[in-house]
Amino acid sequence: MAIALQAPTALLPVAGVAIGVARAGVKPTGAGNDLTLFRLSPQSRTSLMLTRNRFCAAPVVVARNHHAQTRPLAWLVNTGNANAGTGDRGITDAIHCCSAVASALNIDAVAVLPFSTGVIGEPLPVERILAAIPSCLHSTRPDGWVDAAAAIMTTDTVPKGVSKTVEIDGQTVTLTGIAKGAGMIRPDMATMLAFVATDADISQPVLDTLLRDAVAISFNRITIDGDTSTNDACLLAATGASGVRLDHPDSLARFGDALRELCCWLAQAIVRDGEGVTRFISIDVRAAASVAEAEQVAYTVAESPLVKTAAFAGDPNWGRILAAIGRSGIDDLDVSGVSIWLDDYCIVDAGGRISDYSEPEAAARMARDELTIRIELGRGEHAAVVWTTDLSYEYVRINAEYRS
Amino acid sequence: MAIALQAPTALLPVAGVAIGVARAGVKPTGAGNDLTLFRLSPQSRTSLMLTRNRFCAAPVVVARNHHAQTRPLAWLVNTGNANAGTGDRGITDAIHCCSAVASALNIDAVAVLPFSTGVIGEPLPVERILAAIPSCLHSTRPDGWVDAAAAIMTTDTVPKGVSKTVEIDGQTVTLTGIAKGAGMIRPDMATMLAFVATDADISQPVLDTLLRDAVAISFNRITIDGDTSTNDACLLAATGASGVRLDHPDSLARFGDALRELCCWLAQAIVRDGEGVTRFISIDVRAAASVAEAEQVAYTVAESPLVKTAAFAGDPNWGRILAAIGRSGIDDLDVSGVSIWLDDYCIVDAGGRISDYSEPEAAARMARDELTIRIELGRGEHAAVVWTTDLSYEYVRINAEYRS
Repeated sequence: MAIALQAPTALLPVAGVAIGVARAGVKPTGAGNDLTLFRLSPQSRTSLMLTRNRFCAAPVVVARNHHAQTRPLAWLVNTGNANAGTGDRGITDAIHCCSAVASALNIDAVAVLPFSTGVIGEPLPVERILAAIPSCLHSTRPDGWVDAAAAIMTTDTVPKGVSKTVEIDGQTVTLTGIAKGAGMIRPDMATMLAFVATDADISQPVLDTLLRDAVAISFNRITIDGDTSTNDACLLAATGASGVRLDHPDSLARFGDALRELCCWLAQAIVRDGEGVTRFISIDVRAAASVAEAEQVAYTVAESPLVKTAAFAGDPNWGRILAAIGRSGIDDLDVSGVSIWLDDYCIVDAGGRISDYSEPEAAARMARDELTIRIELGRGEHAAVVWTTDLSYEYVRINAEYRS
Repeated sequence: MAIALQAPTALLPVAGVAIGVARAGVKPTGAGNDLTLFRLSPQSRTSLMLTRNRFCAAPVVVARNHHAQTRPLAWLVNTGNANAGTGDRGITDAIHCCSAVASALNIDAVAVLPFSTGVIGEPLPVERILAAIPSCLHSTRPDGWVDAAAAIMTTDTVPKGVSKTVEIDGQTVTLTGIAKGAGMIRPDMATMLAFVATDADISQPVLDTLLRDAVAISFNRITIDGDTSTNDACLLAATGASGVRLDHPDSLARFGDALRELCCWLAQAIVRDGEGVTRFISIDVRAAASVAEAEQVAYTVAESPLVKTAAFAGDPNWGRILAAIGRSGIDDLDVSGVSIWLDDYCIVDAGGRISDYSEPEAAARMARDELTIRIELGRGEHAAVVWTTDLSYEYVRINAEYRS
């Protein structure tokens, strides 16, 4: 049961982007569309960030190589099969799919970036994908985003997409993004993909910086269980079709804000739809000596199985939170400077439980569908927020039974 | 259900050590003995290693201070209450207990080291402990080890103890050790304690080195879920009562082997009795460029919730193991050099699934109560083994319901 997450009913088209979907049959019969094609206008630039997992999937390798050679004009995405752990054959298969798209569009194969998500270790059913490419191409249209949000899902229970607009010099710039992933959690449903586009005109170095900065505080700030995927990818295309060039610092700042908001929304949507989730938890670490330190504490708390099982039980177990902070690797931490809030209720002050602590007050916050655990370290001015879930029976069931 | 772990029926006395137990009522009524006192002969030296968690408990602070001042002559251990998260009062309470023992034994209070394990955040019931100290003292005897192994338990289901003897220059040296902990997992049943003694005569610097080296490959090589405790402590006393002085390199080497074996046995016993455990898993990483690298990979695999839930399901999910290796932080890992075995069955070679892979063969290994996941990195000569458990519904239940 996703936490406060609704499927998008409408997403704004982005001038210069057309999207088609098709049913290739990579997913089991009856599972709906599983192939998505993004076409980008020739002036478009794409920035991409890929998984740092050393066992990255074949499409990740091919996408990186292709992107290094030319401006992408198409992104091809299949679900149902991750084409990961498939060796040299996987590489050949991914290139084969790119070539088929390129030939139909009369572009270079290296202008096509491939993405796959789904089961690891099975060969990609290339013939089925090739057979579906014509109908996928035929269906491309500017308002294909909602269909694409559904077509890229694996174990997601809710499609995830959002649009933003920014006024720049009296003109409107549009951003739309979709994402899939039921947590950062499943190497064998190799996990997160996010596709974002805007009609702004942005130079490649600025585009790269914008994406890197936005991902740092969105997709890189979510965790279900610390496991990362072989297929993670996040793309941002700028088509320039609006004619609005982003070069003034003010414009860039406003666009950057909108992009960060969009990426945070998508990142949070992935956590809200996390496997077995019963609570959506923000770990908000403040007064840290650096952002890296704040992240380190936030991740240690967010990934502590003891904190997560306590959250599942609605148990305001401050001892587990303190212990996670204590082992997070800050060697010179003065524990007497630490305080902890559950939403608006302070449970730990000066490193110890508050003197007039009320278990019912604390338990009432911990039992909420959405809550923030705020941790003040008393060391400086820096902060970081990480979003996570609880750890439920359902998480164990899903991940124990998935292949059975 | 502990995996292949039996309560000790007899443990060898160590000359120079007498042990008493008593029921102080720190644990709930009817729960048995909860207070243990070790008396050490005056020549004894103690080496100790304490938790590195910044939120260490009051007894840890006091034990560290006392040990820095003089040779310990007594160790006092209570279960049922960790005296952690108890602020200044906790320190005073721990010292108060030491003073009571010291006064009864006519020694300095700083010659008593206190240890507590149990619930976090509740004041230590000092009066009950003080009231039980006389009967605890009265019951001290050399063969008190088996009773002590039971009296230090919290959620452990099986007492844990083992003895070894080593022949040195025609004389017998004895080592006996006990431990408690149902995993490194429970800050709020603040977790691991291990007490080891020998009648060998060992200088303080050598004793410290022996303990550090043994702990490095035993208690520091176990993980249930990556959480560490506010109260972890491991002690080694050398009474010298055997008259055998360890100064020859050969003798030291043989004693060191026995101590490592003893600590590994106790460390494994903790994992075998881990919360919700259904499998005892050795993660054996070889052909690494360094021991640190081997440990890093072993811990990443051992703590991956996806690997652990797959183990619970008896699912030989090689994709999850590969993905965990891939994210373990070895930037220059050549994935084509990696191979993986489940016990004697190779499932991954040259970074990919073996060509004649048999799912039934792999599943038969993964379903064993005890199994070894062996990972060869193809990078060098170094190795490390980490012991861990699977992640079961029962783990979630225990940790979600513990305080309810």
